[in-house]
Amino acid sequence: MGRMRTEGLQLWTNARVATLAVGAATPYGLIEDGALAVQDGRIAWVGARKELPLALDDAAVEHDAQGALVTPGLIDCHTHLVYGGDRAAEFEARLNGASYEEIARAGGGILATVRATRAADEESLFAQSRRRLRALCDEGVTTIEIKSGYGLSLAEEAKCLRVARRLGASEGVTVRTTFLGAHAVPPEFDGRPEDYVDAVCRMLPALHAQGLADAVDAFCERIGFSAAQTRRVFDAAQALDLPVKLHAEQLSDSQGAALAASFGALSCDHLEWLSDTGARAMGQAGSVAVLLPGAFYFLRETRVPPIALLREHRVPMALATDCNPGTSPCTSLLLMLNMGCTLFRLTPEEALAGVTRNAARALALDDRGVLAPGLRADFVLWDARHPAELCYAVGFNPRRTTVIEGRIA
Amino acid sequence: MGRMRTEGLQLWTNARVATLAVGAATPYGLIEDGALAVQDGRIAWVGARKELPLALDDAAVEHDAQGALVTPGLIDCHTHLVYGGDRAAEFEARLNGASYEEIARAGGGILATVRATRAADEESLFAQSRRRLRALCDEGVTTIEIKSGYGLSLAEEAKCLRVARRLGASEGVTVRTTFLGAHAVPPEFDGRPEDYVDAVCRMLPALHAQGLADAVDAFCERIGFSAAQTRRVFDAAQALDLPVKLHAEQLSDSQGAALAASFGALSCDHLEWLSDTGARAMGQAGSVAVLLPGAFYFLRETRVPPIALLREHRVPMALATDCNPGTSPCTSLLLMLNMGCTLFRLTPEEALAGVTRNAARALALDDRGVLAPGLRADFVLWDARHPAELCYAVGFNPRRTTVIEGRIA
Ligand SMILES: [Zn+2]
Ligand SMILES: [Zn+2]
Repeated sequence: MGRMRTEGLQLWTNARVATLAVGAATPYGLIEDGALAVQDGRIAWVGARKELPLALDDAAVEHDAQGALVTPGLIDCHTHLVYGGDRAAEFEARLNGASYEEIARAGGGILATVRATRAADEESLFAQSRRRLRALCDEGVTTIEIKSGYGLSLAEEAKCLRVARRLGASEGVTVRTTFLGAHAVPPEFDGRPEDYVDAVCRMLPALHAQGLADAVDAFCERIGFSAAQTRRVFDAAQALDLPVKLHAEQLSDSQGAALAASFGALSCDHLEWLSDTGARAMGQAGSVAVLLPGAFYFLRETRVPPIALLREHRVPMALATDCNPGTSPCTSLLLMLNMGCTLFRLTPEEALAGVTRNAARALALDDRGVLAPGLRADFVLWDARHPAELCYAVGFNPRRTTVIEGRIA
Repeated sequence: MGRMRTEGLQLWTNARVATLAVGAATPYGLIEDGALAVQDGRIAWVGARKELPLALDDAAVEHDAQGALVTPGLIDCHTHLVYGGDRAAEFEARLNGASYEEIARAGGGILATVRATRAADEESLFAQSRRRLRALCDEGVTTIEIKSGYGLSLAEEAKCLRVARRLGASEGVTVRTTFLGAHAVPPEFDGRPEDYVDAVCRMLPALHAQGLADAVDAFCERIGFSAAQTRRVFDAAQALDLPVKLHAEQLSDSQGAALAASFGALSCDHLEWLSDTGARAMGQAGSVAVLLPGAFYFLRETRVPPIALLREHRVPMALATDCNPGTSPCTSLLLMLNMGCTLFRLTPEEALAGVTRNAARALALDDRGVLAPGLRADFVLWDARHPAELCYAVGFNPRRTTVIEGRIA
């Protein structure tokens, strides 16, 4: 393979490396007695130890992985991590017999979180959100998407997105931000959803100018925004060249997936009610299906996303926590691996690809999600023999070490 | 309250104390701005700070709980924590379409764990099991029950129970052991279940003589042991004055609960198919219903235990992980709080009593499970404002500090 630069080269050996590369010769791209060479924060080489080029072996600082399983750093590609307060009291009230209506009348539901988020200053919001991010990182998450959507005004959405950006810098992980102004209609626009959609479309250029939004999302649902309203938001995003994604087909078939696909959406998320037409459109557009078993579980849904249809139309599937206070107060991506398998019947290999390779794709990050030369050296060492163990265990965290851009985090 | 001894007294203040005491004036026995006095490993006093006797305040070493929520140490009252190997490959095979029959033919199922457990030497079994125990303790577990049942011979059952005892000593938590010889029929007794039950009844006195069994359990089920066989095991236990408990009514109504209740069982566990008769018998006998939502979830069961019936017959309810490699590879008791609420519709207060007060009762430990004077000073400080948060969160561990017998663990 010619001459290689070897300054600053770090070598990880004695590892069982699951590369998750597409079309690998083994399931998970698993390499027994593998080695990984890292340079300048990128993977320089990955393969079986015995095939390691001599030049690398000689020059490198060596880390003994002690037989650990190595996977790409985990990617949580759908979260609403930045919010104020919690909804534990509402959770308890419901279990004590209160109806949704009674809870809404008592000021509960999503607007309770909007109030608490608006009331929190930036420092408090940062501190509250950081403990959730740290829980995710403790399980090997190295890249995370964070949506706004509890501010619902330019100033408040900007505040939440700034907190998201700061979290990335503070914790040393990659944060991708998504503007979800079209999450709910705020009280000051009560009864005037069209006016609020206008307001959302006006917020977008301002947030874009501040560099706060990497993508644009909407909640397309009977209890959210219509397909026509979603289209207006997407048009505004397209005018700024911002990629879109969509909360689609969670509670009903609103044909959001096909709409999103027509905008070349990065992903459509939830999808319990996805139709054949929607799946086909996603497959053709290359949109990722982001499955959210935490919300399915928490809401006690019974209709699972049409996995067979997604496989048939070759739609890449990702898994995410959907971390949010109302429908998935969840900070464990490993648990989502298990729920993806147990509840949605994904195979462990599909599940693991769903929090690495396909999650990267859902975020348009082509520099990660797989362990291959030239990509970011974001990876995790696990105290496990086989990748399936990460999906099989419930509530167990075998993470040993996280490496981000080549450095032990 | 008279003169009090104050040497070695430790005072915890600035805490929100959930005592979980029966008949407390507030839900969870919650005391705002509470204090806890500890002496000689026991609770000397608990109550509102402003009612603290002066003598205690003066003499004590003070710990500032910094507003933490304090609960009794958590108790996991049903686990099969000590086993060799795992069943991740079987989990994966099933998700790739293998039938139960194919897996059994390939040597899978419970007997795979029996083989792996027998093959493991005591050190290896200890190390494999310790990582699971540590995961539980990391979430505030201070007392745990561990069953045998993967050895299925006197020597192998003794090995597993010795490992359980050693784990308690090594990790500084209380381990209660349960002999579950009647878990499955081992290969050497294939086709001769009655002979194996004889063997189980002969193992019991020997294990008892070695001080290895605190209680006796059996798996009463169509695919386990019949009611008549269970009765023989219970008779043998009764002859030694050992308390009994039972895996009952998980997959069918085998009327195990009523049988167990007639022996004054500490608990009947699982109970998805419990009948009214069974629930009434349990209520009269004072047996605890140990609910195991992890197994319900992992097996994708649809029939939930009859919670209303248990409430009606005033059967105390506990929650446990059922940690085992085949049907609940789960090491998170906090997740069981959430699953108890989400899947079984327990209230958060019932769920929390289920891993404290009622779990202690299921283990016949009357010195813990509640924070009250004279009881063991086993408690946990949580980074939470309200006890319901412990049930509401999914995959989040807010534990700050564990105190066991008055000492920070
Ligand atoms: Zn969402
Ligand atoms: Zn069990």
